[in-house]
Amino acid sequence: MRYSRMLIPTVKEVPSDAEITSHQLMIRGGFMRKVASGTYTYLPLGRRSLLKVISIVREEMDRAGAQEILMPAVQPIELWQKTGRDVDYGETMARFTDRHGRVNVLAPTAEEVVTNIAANEINSYKQLPMNIYQISFKFRDEFRPRFGVLRSREFIMKDSYSFHADEASLDETYRIMYETYCRIFRRCGLDYVSVEAESGEMGGSGSHQFTVPCESGEDTIVYTEDGSYAANLERAAVDPLPKQSADVEIPPVEEVHTPQVGSIEAVCAFMKTRPEEMIKTLIYVSGGEVIASLVRGDHELNQEKLTQVLGGKGAELADEATIVKVTGAAVGFAGPMGIAGKVSRMFVDHAVAGMAAGVTGANKTDYHIRNVLPDRDFPLEGNNIEVVDIRNAVEGDAHNGKRLLFKKGIEVGQVFKLGTKYSLKLGAKFLDENGVEKPCIMGCYGIGINRILASAIEISHDSDGIIWPISIAPFEVLVTSVNQDNEQVAGVAERIYKELLEKGVDVLLDDRMLRGGVKFKDADLIGIPVRVTVGKRAVAEGNVELKLRSETQSKRVVIEEAAEKTVGLVNSLKEQLIR
Amino acid sequence: MRYSRMLIPTVKEVPSDAEITSHQLMIRGGFMRKVASGTYTYLPLGRRSLLKVISIVREEMDRAGAQEILMPAVQPIELWQKTGRDVDYGETMARFTDRHGRVNVLAPTAEEVVTNIAANEINSYKQLPMNIYQISFKFRDEFRPRFGVLRSREFIMKDSYSFHADEASLDETYRIMYETYCRIFRRCGLDYVSVEAESGEMGGSGSHQFTVPCESGEDTIVYTEDGSYAANLERAAVDPLPKQSADVEIPPVEEVHTPQVGSIEAVCAFMKTRPEEMIKTLIYVSGGEVIASLVRGDHELNQEKLTQVLGGKGAELADEATIVKVTGAAVGFAGPMGIAGKVSRMFVDHAVAGMAAGVTGANKTDYHIRNVLPDRDFPLEGNNIEVVDIRNAVEGDAHNGKRLLFKKGIEVGQVFKLGTKYSLKLGAKFLDENGVEKPCIMGCYGIGINRILASAIEISHDSDGIIWPISIAPFEVLVTSVNQDNEQVAGVAERIYKELLEKGVDVLLDDRMLRGGVKFKDADLIGIPVRVTVGKRAVAEGNVELKLRSETQSKRVVIEEAAEKTVGLVNSLKEQLIR
Repeated sequence: MRYSRMLIPTVKEVPSDAEITSHQLMIRGGFMRKVASGTYTYLPLGRRSLLKVISIVREEMDRAGAQEILMPAVQPIELWQKTGRDVDYGETMARFTDRHGRVNVLAPTAEEVVTNIAANEINSYKQLPMNIYQISFKFRDEFRPRFGVLRSREFIMKDSYSFHADEASLDETYRIMYETYCRIFRRCGLDYVSVEAESGEMGGSGSHQFTVPCESGEDTIVYTEDGSYAANLERAAVDPLPKQSADVEIPPVEEVHTPQVGSIEAVCAFMKTRPEEMIKTLIYVSGGEVIASLVRGDHELNQEKLTQVLGGKGAELADEATIVKVTGAAVGFAGPMGIAGKVSRMFVDHAVAGMAAGVTGANKTDYHIRNVLPDRDFPLEGNNIEVVDIRNAVEGDAHNGKRLLFKKGIEVGQVFKLGTKYSLKLGAKFLDENGVEKPCIMGCYGIGINRILASAIEISHDSDGIIWPISIAPFEVLVTSVNQDNEQVAGVAERIYKELLEKGVDVLLDDRMLRGGVKFKDADLIGIPVRVTVGKRAVAEGNVELKLRSETQSKRVVIEEAAEKTVGLVNSLKEQLIR
Repeated sequence: MRYSRMLIPTVKEVPSDAEITSHQLMIRGGFMRKVASGTYTYLPLGRRSLLKVISIVREEMDRAGAQEILMPAVQPIELWQKTGRDVDYGETMARFTDRHGRVNVLAPTAEEVVTNIAANEINSYKQLPMNIYQISFKFRDEFRPRFGVLRSREFIMKDSYSFHADEASLDETYRIMYETYCRIFRRCGLDYVSVEAESGEMGGSGSHQFTVPCESGEDTIVYTEDGSYAANLERAAVDPLPKQSADVEIPPVEEVHTPQVGSIEAVCAFMKTRPEEMIKTLIYVSGGEVIASLVRGDHELNQEKLTQVLGGKGAELADEATIVKVTGAAVGFAGPMGIAGKVSRMFVDHAVAGMAAGVTGANKTDYHIRNVLPDRDFPLEGNNIEVVDIRNAVEGDAHNGKRLLFKKGIEVGQVFKLGTKYSLKLGAKFLDENGVEKPCIMGCYGIGINRILASAIEISHDSDGIIWPISIAPFEVLVTSVNQDNEQVAGVAERIYKELLEKGVDVLLDDRMLRGGVKFKDADLIGIPVRVTVGKRAVAEGNVELKLRSETQSKRVVIEEAAEKTVGLVNSLKEQLIR
């Protein structure tokens, strides 16, 4: 391809809404443009990289014996109602009523449709195991799309689903998919880690997440220094804190007038206490039921853990009207006393149960209560009450007695053992060797295609721009004609370009009539890994310059050998990824 | 691939909703399954064929110098409001309100987004011409999805858009795209014709449609025997019919009581007249305006022609309430007398203007009128009245004096000259050589990827199943092991399978433990073009059988030469398509 004929609109300015490097560089390098909140157009360079990722993923999935299919993105809500995920997904799942009054969803994932296929097409154990995948458009109406393609609304996902006659077969395919994911991310040039993960709304038991560690990641990996435990923040189980005992006997509860003091910080200031001595009472709604969740003032409720204790059902923070109705008070004054009787279920975090005494809302507008003792002033046991782990791990927490450490990262893939959750609800059954009808055991496996681009950039760039891994770079080689107005230079550049094309190299020729400085700046920005620089002075001496984007030093080679040496460089970069 | 490990759920039964051959065979051959009205899952065989079509289209588009991008499928309605196509598309365009209250559409096409990109990124004539394409998910909420993937709601479209500084440049790219389309359809093995087409809601001037003639096609091609004129039915311009004169003077209009007689047929029976002596008055709504359209009782209004006379605006039949309000009568009794003053515009088809006298509705429930004379009893001229060509051509019509012939077909692609309709509305301007700002001149070019599969099947099948063109067959070669329980047979089949794989042939090995008869039936049904049959008797003599799906005779070849001869057959089939 010729740069002069391509749409590569590089820009100097950092877009105002681009908070992280990959987002900034994908816009600045002309890889994509925003269309609306969380949706982007991939321009030619971005589309090329995306297609390269897709092709690696497809190759490895096929190698793993998976079969590619394509399910519709617009799906009837009836299938989702069968699993209850129409409710679980809440507003994240976009829906529309069609011209005949039927409700459709934009599929955020495809368990329902694929399990329905299995229900119709799988009859016998002889057809199992079966591993099916697609690479397709997905939509999730994220509350706050951001970080470019890391949290976008529309994206491309590789989602696969496996069906099994027994657990051993699931384990085997799970292992194959795990290894396939390792190969895929390695081939894409990503330094990733894999950790235990929460299966959340997917249901099922057992899951691993593939994460690319980097500062701008939204995910947190939690691990012990000795490597004996690693999980994502959603999953990381924390040891209960030791039960605190008060130095003195706690006096009875005391109501305090706290006019317009709602936030944790404001209450602490007003009541002269600290967040770790407060109890937050959070009102959630899950499947139409109202849930109270108690965590310490300095802790964060973990939505995935909450989902887990709810048996896989999603939960959303209740709206103002519900909170007012349940607590009898304005938002900001909810408290645990007397609340258990007004909600369907109450979950008390271990850390709250272990508190000596706390300050909480009074379920009365403009009032808080001090000296609230768990078990004395509100119950820790009962029909609808459970003491559980529902908070995020924090600095100082331990797992099995070992201190937990934290690292940020980008999730690029996840594998799940689903079990029979979907096959039971959608009737995906088979007859075993003995003619006994059983539900298929399932696994599912996802990769965020677009995120691979962003995470590659996050871990491989410098102040001038991107440094692409060769496997997913928009081009493998850039031939820069520094003096395109000079016939000899243009001729040499053209010759090397054509030689590289003939050798099967994916090459871009910068044939623009621009100053060398501008071309070098663009070259650094778009980050093509191997460069051939053709300039007047070197050409006069029969040479061109060969350079890796990742290195500062270039090497002179004679024009006649330039193409061959370039191919050598390309191959060595490729081999480093496949190793 | 091994048949035993693939999901190829062939079925004997013809699905009840599958009216045409391609739909039946795609279901019966296990290529796809219906998910909901107008949406399908492509199973492995179907997905493979689809990917082959995509790869041919991509290769040819790249060869033509077009650049691939990817636009979002979910688009903000604001862009569509700028061109007014949010109204024009009516209910066909699916919309949903997202969690932040913004209205999004599922893009049925992408002129708005691509022109917006041009508006932002194109500044100078130096960047022109530019030809941009994508291959992506599209959704159209068809009123009546049918014929399998021929009229589905969700589909894959290759849509491209070109931008130009002048008409000559557009003509050049239009020509290149026209030729590219010819190559694409030829490579896909389609016998197509290209005809003049209507540009309809796209706006613009000049369009060609690529159609695969076949009985089950929904489109009609209209042509003169001498080949001097060919167009699709939507486009085909008909000569005005000669003005009819009555033998006797027509008496004054006479109202007739026609209780509950609404349809053309019922009125004809009741009033003892013929459809060609009736005037149909159809009430449409277009962009909020009410339109009356008059066509003869035996003619069909042509929606595309109506769109054209409305200047590119779409129109939909008015609902009952609107009809009652405008005509003052129940549906079925609209008529031309006095209607011009009650609508925004009135269009009279040439054939109506040429009638001697007619029967029409009386704009009064349960009444018709006879002896209605155009020009005497309702006006043919006026501010808001036009006599135009708004009907479909029919048998007996002529174009430029030559008789028109008709042929059914499937539209697989269309190319359009758009002009400046979109660039003006969306501000896609550039500075020319003299620094003068001008709107980009545009072309657009679409291919229905899924329809290519269906039309290939429609024109290439027999009573046993599909006969795929080799380029888009799910596999090039099928090796059938007739006696998989026989070690020698299985061994020979396996050996030839592996030899073919090594030679780069896309081959499927039928290694199932089933009777030969079942395997042959499946083979005929799924239609892989080249077959190697490995059976006990032939193998005992050192032979296997080689056969084309399109032929009945097979040829014996010695086992050692089987792979090589097969490759020869594959290559000759490929060459026939590329010629």
